[in-house]
Amino acid sequence: MAVSLGELAERFGCELIGDPTVEVTRLGTLAGAGPDALSFLTSDAYRKQLPSTRAAAVILRASDADDCPVAALVSDDPYASYARMAAAVCPPPAYEPGIHASAVVAGSATVASSAHVAANAVIEDDVTIGANTYIGPGVVVGPGCNIGSDCRVLANATLVRAVTTGDRCIFHSNSVIGSDGFGNAMTPDGWLKVPQVGGVRIGDDVEVGANSAIDCGAVGDTVIGNGVRLDNQVHIAHNVEVGDHTAMAAFVGISGSVKIGKRCMFAGMAGVAGHLEICDDVVILGKGMVSKSIRKPGAYAGKFPVEDARTWNRRVASLRRLDKLQSRVSELEKKKQ
Amino acid sequence: MAVSLGELAERFGCELIGDPTVEVTRLGTLAGAGPDALSFLTSDAYRKQLPSTRAAAVILRASDADDCPVAALVSDDPYASYARMAAAVCPPPAYEPGIHASAVVAGSATVASSAHVAANAVIEDDVTIGANTYIGPGVVVGPGCNIGSDCRVLANATLVRAVTTGDRCIFHSNSVIGSDGFGNAMTPDGWLKVPQVGGVRIGDDVEVGANSAIDCGAVGDTVIGNGVRLDNQVHIAHNVEVGDHTAMAAFVGISGSVKIGKRCMFAGMAGVAGHLEICDDVVILGKGMVSKSIRKPGAYAGKFPVEDARTWNRRVASLRRLDKLQSRVSELEKKKQ
Amino acid sequence: MAVSLGELAERFGCELIGDPTVEVTRLGTLAGAGPDALSFLTSDAYRKQLPSTRAAAVILRASDADDCPVAALVSDDPYASYARMAAAVCPPPAYEPGIHASAVVAGSATVASSAHVAANAVIEDDVTIGANTYIGPGVVVGPGCNIGSDCRVLANATLVRAVTTGDRCIFHSNSVIGSDGFGNAMTPDGWLKVPQVGGVRIGDDVEVGANSAIDCGAVGDTVIGNGVRLDNQVHIAHNVEVGDHTAMAAFVGISGSVKIGKRCMFAGMAGVAGHLEICDDVVILGKGMVSKSIRKPGAYAGKFPVEDARTWNRRVASLRRLDKLQSRVSELEKKKQ
Repeated sequence: MAVSLGELAERFGCELIGDPTVEVTRLGTLAGAGPDALSFLTSDAYRKQLPSTRAAAVILRASDADDCPVAALVSDDPYASYARMAAAVCPPPAYEPGIHASAVVAGSATVASSAHVAANAVIEDDVTIGANTYIGPGVVVGPGCNIGSDCRVLANATLVRAVTTGDRCIFHSNSVIGSDGFGNAMTPDGWLKVPQVGGVRIGDDVEVGANSAIDCGAVGDTVIGNGVRLDNQVHIAHNVEVGDHTAMAAFVGISGSVKIGKRCMFAGMAGVAGHLEICDDVVILGKGMVSKSIRKPGAYAGKFPVEDARTWNRRVASLRRLDKLQSRVSELEKKKQ
Repeated sequence: MAVSLGELAERFGCELIGDPTVEVTRLGTLAGAGPDALSFLTSDAYRKQLPSTRAAAVILRASDADDCPVAALVSDDPYASYARMAAAVCPPPAYEPGIHASAVVAGSATVASSAHVAANAVIEDDVTIGANTYIGPGVVVGPGCNIGSDCRVLANATLVRAVTTGDRCIFHSNSVIGSDGFGNAMTPDGWLKVPQVGGVRIGDDVEVGANSAIDCGAVGDTVIGNGVRLDNQVHIAHNVEVGDHTAMAAFVGISGSVKIGKRCMFAGMAGVAGHLEICDDVVILGKGMVSKSIRKPGAYAGKFPVEDARTWNRRVASLRRLDKLQSRVSELEKKKQ
Repeated sequence: MAVSLGELAERFGCELIGDPTVEVTRLGTLAGAGPDALSFLTSDAYRKQLPSTRAAAVILRASDADDCPVAALVSDDPYASYARMAAAVCPPPAYEPGIHASAVVAGSATVASSAHVAANAVIEDDVTIGANTYIGPGVVVGPGCNIGSDCRVLANATLVRAVTTGDRCIFHSNSVIGSDGFGNAMTPDGWLKVPQVGGVRIGDDVEVGANSAIDCGAVGDTVIGNGVRLDNQVHIAHNVEVGDHTAMAAFVGISGSVKIGKRCMFAGMAGVAGHLEICDDVVILGKGMVSKSIRKPGAYAGKFPVEDARTWNRRVASLRRLDKLQSRVSELEKKKQ
């Protein structure tokens, strides 16, 4: 969508250095943008690309404006400004209201007239779908789900049952919300399934990545706060509570009944053991395993980065000899006295 | 479903302390249950909630009965008793037999008349579907699959081909059973795909979580024993054999041709390298990497839990200086002599 | 498909020791093959099964030929020869050209007349599907995708949008290609979604496993080279570039904007942090976390394998006392002088 630099500056509160009538119609990297594209500079790593950019305009901090060879949109937070302007230039696709002839919608379901239900989607009993919500092709919305307004449920995602969402949520393809929790009781004859009868309650502005899964509560609900962002391949077990604006990268796994605070960040492949509590503003670094509750904000880590395999094998051997080393030092200390 | 406490006590062999005519219609936590709900107490962490519970009845051990303010169902194993009674109070949904008009069923497929095939499901050639089995919306059952009785294949799950299951199995949404194994032969021109022509044989009472995948055998079958329980996001590679009643939590990955014994438990994100054997009754703790066969039952671990990131960085530096420390101690010992 | 040993030897350049008119119709392991099956020997672990095999013929190295009790197909690289011959004996299924009546194909889509679109698949706007390509049941191919020739997109896979592939690619069930990258800008009001407007460009002969996900670029494309092989449950973030013939095992996660060279191999559960570069011919061992760019070919590791849990707990305690041990040794050294 063509938007003038003047309009962008005005709508999003930036100072424009350059011609306000120039229009941008697409987005581009500093190196790749052409003269119809909007670009941005947020990271030192890309600053060297600024002087040669051919973008129509670059969103940047005031301190970088002098080096900008094209129009500049000056912002205190260029990445946030970019997010807003990019959505103006490239808004998400709009869908015609209506239900595709091949979709199957239960008689007891209520679909807003402004919603779009795509080909081969299935809407089961007692579902409500809010205004302007998009249900993609192949999506299944199971019994008792209530989906808010302006949501997007992408192709082949599954809301299994008893999922309630706020507005403006996005569920990416092949994500699963409301699957049974992993509840099993051991008996002399093997595992007994523990019925999982709770639901999932999801706030506003939540995004769930492709192939992620959020289980329903065993009894009571799994709860995802407002503004939570989950990357692809995330797993949230039954009865977990995730606080507002917490973000989790790919392959993060949260075990059952964990309570997580607000504004936490989990790097990829981090995991949390069952029934723990993590307070607000905690960062778990890559591949970290949380095995005790965390009550103090801050960053936590527990993974050795790779080294060349030969060096690493020596580390493994060293750690295994460490007991003995402790004894040898104690021996030396004894002799000392 | 309303069930009286007297009936629960009798059917499931518990002593009832309280009025046998009281009926429960739902399940609840100790803290959240109302006067129509059945609750349970199994863990010390929740004992403090017992005196104030408003549940209709609590399943608990004899030693906790005195502190129970409401009816008590006394059991030696309250969690197993809860699993059984919960299934009586909240049985899985029943489905009308029949094939939805939008489902596509191959002429060569045999679907039991008591089975339910939901909207937009696809049943391909030479498939058999057993009695009372539920095939959910969007499910694909590929060529040559034989699904037992009383199974549930949930929305958008895929049984790719040549999958044979026992009875009472559950495949959660978007799980994939019978996908090709990761077989590639390196050549000077790049990888050559190795055809994956085996199947998957699954026992009775197996449950597979959302977004999990079990590959077919390269030649011969991948085999999953009776009563195996897999959480979400689990990966079982080609020609793996998993013994009866083994359980795996989320993100567990088992490499090709691994043989796993009975009653093993894998905590989240544990992994096993290819071609290993793991005997019965082994527990792999969270994020453990198994790189040698295990021939002795017991618990195995290999992951450092997180600490605050500054402390952890010191650990990383310490480990990297460990070689040198060994030399320094040897030096001291030499001087000693 | 029945193929004679003589034909196999001639087509794939092996020496045949045995009767060229014998036909094989299936594949088998050394231990399991019957007299109509082709088998192979590549690994020392299976050599002891050779003398008693009942296979029709075994593909093996010249040095093993004397111990072969049946016909031998002699090859310098038996596994590659097996891959080729197995594909001749068990070719992938052939599909009748055409579009199933229940599939939904947009008017603006172009589907080659030799392609097969299965039941309940959905092909959206401005898609092209190449010759002989198979689109499985429940597959969704979203707007603007261009799929090459001789590809196979298996049941319930999703190509979200703007995915371009070469020829002979395979996308396994429930994989997702072209999902939004995880782009979020923090603001005082919470996360802002950063529009993800790039696409995914995939080369020839690429295979993507079940439940894997490849995100589109934020701006510009995510790029997967020729001959790349991804196992199940792999995650490739936005704007990643993967070089030709690189292979990744299950649960590998590559963060945004990472550039990976050619012929790299990632073992299961390895992860790479954002914006790094990895040169050609790098091997990352199981569960390795790459947190710095790698500029030198070779093998890299960073994970302790499991030990019995008691021993491991001692290791954890030892590492935590290591600081103190360093001080004690320094103290001893000082006294020494």
